Formats: sequence, structure tokens, C-alpha cells
Amino acid sequence: MTVTVDPHVALTWIERIAPGTGIERARDEVAVEEPLEIRADGEAVAVTMRTPGEDEELAVGFLAGEGLIGGREDVVSAGPTADLEANVVEVRTRAGLRRDPSDERRFYMTSSCGVCGKAALEFVHRESPPAAASAPVKPELVLRLPHEARDGQTGFERTGGLHATAVFDPAGEMLVLREDVGRHNAMDKALGVLLLEGRWPLTGLLACLSGRAGFELVQKASVAGLAGVVAVGAPSSLAVELAEERGTLLCGFVRGDSFNVYAGAHRLS
Amino acid sequence: MTVTVDPHVALTWIERIAPGTGIERARDEVAVEEPLEIRADGEAVAVTMRTPGEDEELAVGFLAGEGLIGGREDVVSAGPTADLEANVVEVRTRAGLRRDPSDERRFYMTSSCGVCGKAALEFVHRESPPAAASAPVKPELVLRLPHEARDGQTGFERTGGLHATAVFDPAGEMLVLREDVGRHNAMDKALGVLLLEGRWPLTGLLACLSGRAGFELVQKASVAGLAGVVAVGAPSSLAVELAEERGTLLCGFVRGDSFNVYAGAHRLS
Repeated sequence: MTVTVDPHVALTWIERIAPGTGIERARDEVAVEEPLEIRADGEAVAVTMRTPGEDEELAVGFLAGEGLIGGREDVVSAGPTADLEANVVEVRTRAGLRRDPSDERRFYMTSSCGVCGKAALEFVHRESPPAAASAPVKPELVLRLPHEARDGQTGFERTGGLHATAVFDPAGEMLVLREDVGRHNAMDKALGVLLLEGRWPLTGLLACLSGRAGFELVQKASVAGLAGVVAVGAPSSLAVELAEERGTLLCGFVRGDSFNVYAGAHRLS
Repeated sequence: MTVTVDPHVALTWIERIAPGTGIERARDEVAVEEPLEIRADGEAVAVTMRTPGEDEELAVGFLAGEGLIGGREDVVSAGPTADLEANVVEVRTRAGLRRDPSDERRFYMTSSCGVCGKAALEFVHRESPPAAASAPVKPELVLRLPHEARDGQTGFERTGGLHATAVFDPAGEMLVLREDVGRHNAMDKALGVLLLEGRWPLTGLLACLSGRAGFELVQKASVAGLAGVVAVGAPSSLAVELAEERGTLLCGFVRGDSFNVYAGAHRLS
């Protein structure tokens, strides 16, 4: 049995098996995971397995990353549904979603070539703001971001089971950090916080990811207008291609005192 | 630009920034990621971002993990669609899917309590074979599995960007290992290989995961009838609850010479 002690962390009993101590019964903390249904104007748009506690930000960030809302002005309200069902969050929009939400993965379906990476890239291209110039990013700043983010990853420190996305301004100040069992959710939450503060698109800002940089994370960064993505882990092929096409700085394996630049090197000073 | 050199790995140019060498232009290998549409009997069931090359196994494993097919005997054929569209795989079933596939996340919707973890647990309970006794698992075997799996993770070794699932018999012999940019896909592929070989359910077998053990991975393990899940990373709260309810051995942080047992300790010797 697990007992939730705060929205992010639950306690459970474990047996810890290690040389020297043998079998030891102990209390351990695990990351909380629960399903969440995201509704927009009364209609179910998506269900995700997430860590509770910042559902409004998650919902708004998710919709924005999919191009379904275009900024703070599109959001009338975000919160639990009126009948107080657990794990359902509702976003009310000013004038409806920017397109039909019934096909969550619609971009895959629109290309005459069937389902392919090219269609995915075209979809993101259509949904993203024009690529904009940004302040030159110093390599020292890239190296510093994961350390700064790590200091804020208190849930990861306790459970080892939470991903994080942090967003920084060009001077290296951390604007927001969010954690979640799902890496996509962590980014949705971080972007949603900024959108609800009235910042959108996030032109010139940098996202720092605690893990790998797959296509969907770079897609969210692109649609948000971010200048760069700094990842502790590896990028995928389609993530590299998207970042190249968008001129997004994409750094991977940012660890210790070295890193790889996969795209957008012109944004480095 | 990335150039695919085998189904799993693509080459790209990077700038590597490190002290001593400064900025160095280099060739680097990244994990291939492309969308895949899974169809069953002509109907689109899901789209996933995956590493190409084992689409039939992925599709069959996905359907089985969702409880939509119940074994090799349900599969007439699996392969690319007749019109040879890229990235579409089609499964033909003997007598249709075991339920309406139009609602991929149907289990969240069936409970009177709305969307909640309890509904998720009930869904898995319904779809899983009865929990069965298994040969006692020695702690030494648990510790050995990640090492054995790691030796087979050639794509991870090259790219750092692929997750893996390996399945072992109770004696510790590795039956299959599959890698993918998506951790769910890696497990779907591994389970799909065994199903296509006529093994299903996978009673008594153990899965070894290269990363964390979230709810959906333990769900797939449960529906497959596995005796245990051995993960290098952390479990989530809902994964622990599911494993407890199903009596599944769930080991996390299996690293070096120690590990934590989150559920199913009775299966250890």
C-alpha cells in the first residue's frame, strides 16, 4: 500500500536487499502517479498518467503545446470540473480550441505520404511561431543549467522517479521548474505556468530537460517558440531534424563539463 | 540532417564542446524515431513514436498488452499494409479485437468514480490472467538480470537514446531483448516476439526494464501474466499498488549489489 504524503510523493514499505545488511524492512518514498483527464469546453481531449498537484498548468501547457490555444487570452478559466470529480481538469476557452480536438494525433493523418516523420515536421512547422533571433548563448550557461535545475528537483531527490523541465531566461535565471512522472507532463506544466502568467510565445527562452530529448518534447519547445533545449540525455533522430529545421539550439548529454550540439549551433556565442 | 544507417541508428554531425579540445566537429549516432500507425482489421488503433524495424512485434505486443488479443491464435497476420505505406503496420485477427478499440484509454472511463487510479487497477485486474505461483526467485538472479540485459543493449551503447525490455525465464536465461526510443514500445516488442512464438500468457517469466517502472509498464506485465518486473529505475505509486494487488514481484533501483522490493516479496527465495 502507498500513502500519499504530498501531491508528489507517497510512502510505501519496502524490503531493501543489500550486502552487509541483508534484508531490511524500510519506509521508502515513491513518485505519485494517477490518471488525469483533460477537458476543454466540456469535451475530453486527452488522458495522461501524471503526478497530481498542478493540473491547471498541465492542461493549459498541453493545449498550448499542441497548438490548440494560442496564449493567455484564449483561456477563460482552468480548474477541477464543477462536479468535483477527482482527476478531471477543465479548461474553458474564449472562443473554442483552435481546431478539432477529436483527433489528438491529427498531424500524422494529414499527409499524403501516410504516417511519416515528414508529416510530423510539417505539422510542427505550421503550429510554431516564426523562428526568431535570440541573445547568444554562452557554452558556460548551457553547462550550468542542469545543475541549477537539479537543485530544484526536490521530488526527484526524494523518489528518483520524477522527470523535470526548467525554463530559463537568456541571462540564465530560472523562471520555472516542474516535476512529473511523465517527461511530457513536466514540460507541459512548466510551459503552462508561463502561459498563465501571460508569457506566450516564449521567444528567446531555454528549456532544460532532466532526461532525453525526443521528438514530442522538441515539438512542444518549438510550438512555444523557445530558442533552445538543453538535455541531460540523448536526442532522437526526429528531434534533431526538427531542431535543425526550426533553428532551435539542441544540446544533449550536457553532463560535467562537456556537451554535444545537435542543432542550432549559431545560437551559441 | 540525420542519415539512417540501420533501423535503430542514424548518423548526424555534431559540435562537441569539452574542455581541452574546445569545439570539435564530429559524427555522432542517434536513436531513430519515427511515427507508426497500428491498425487492426483495417481500423487505426493507435499511433506511437517508435524506433523502426520490429513493427509487427510491436503491434502484436501492444494489442496483447491492452487485452485486445489473447494469444497467437488470435493473430492471422501482421505486417506492413498492402499499399506499402511507410510506417503503417496492420494486424489481421481471427475474430476481431476482443473489444471496441475506438477508445484506447477506455478503462479510465468505465468507473463511476470518474478518472482515477482505482479504475485503472480494476481494468488491469479484469484483463489479466489469474496470478499464478512461480519458481522462487533468488536475489542473486534479480541482481544479475540488468547486467545480462545491458550486454544486449547494443543500440543504447551506440546512441544513449534507447530504452530496453528483456524477458527472462525463471532460470535466468534471456529469451528476448528489444530496444526502442519509447519504453512502452520496447516492452510491447519484447512481449510481441514471445506471443508470435506461441508463448502467451507469459506465466512465471520475469521482465527486466532499463529504466523506471511506471503504471503502464507494470500493467503490460500483468496482462501478460509475468511473475515479476525488475527495474533499474524507480517505480511509481500506482505501479506499486498494481503489483501488490496482482502479487507481482516488483524490484526497483536494481543497481550494483543492492535493490528494493516494492511488491511480491513472497516470490523471492
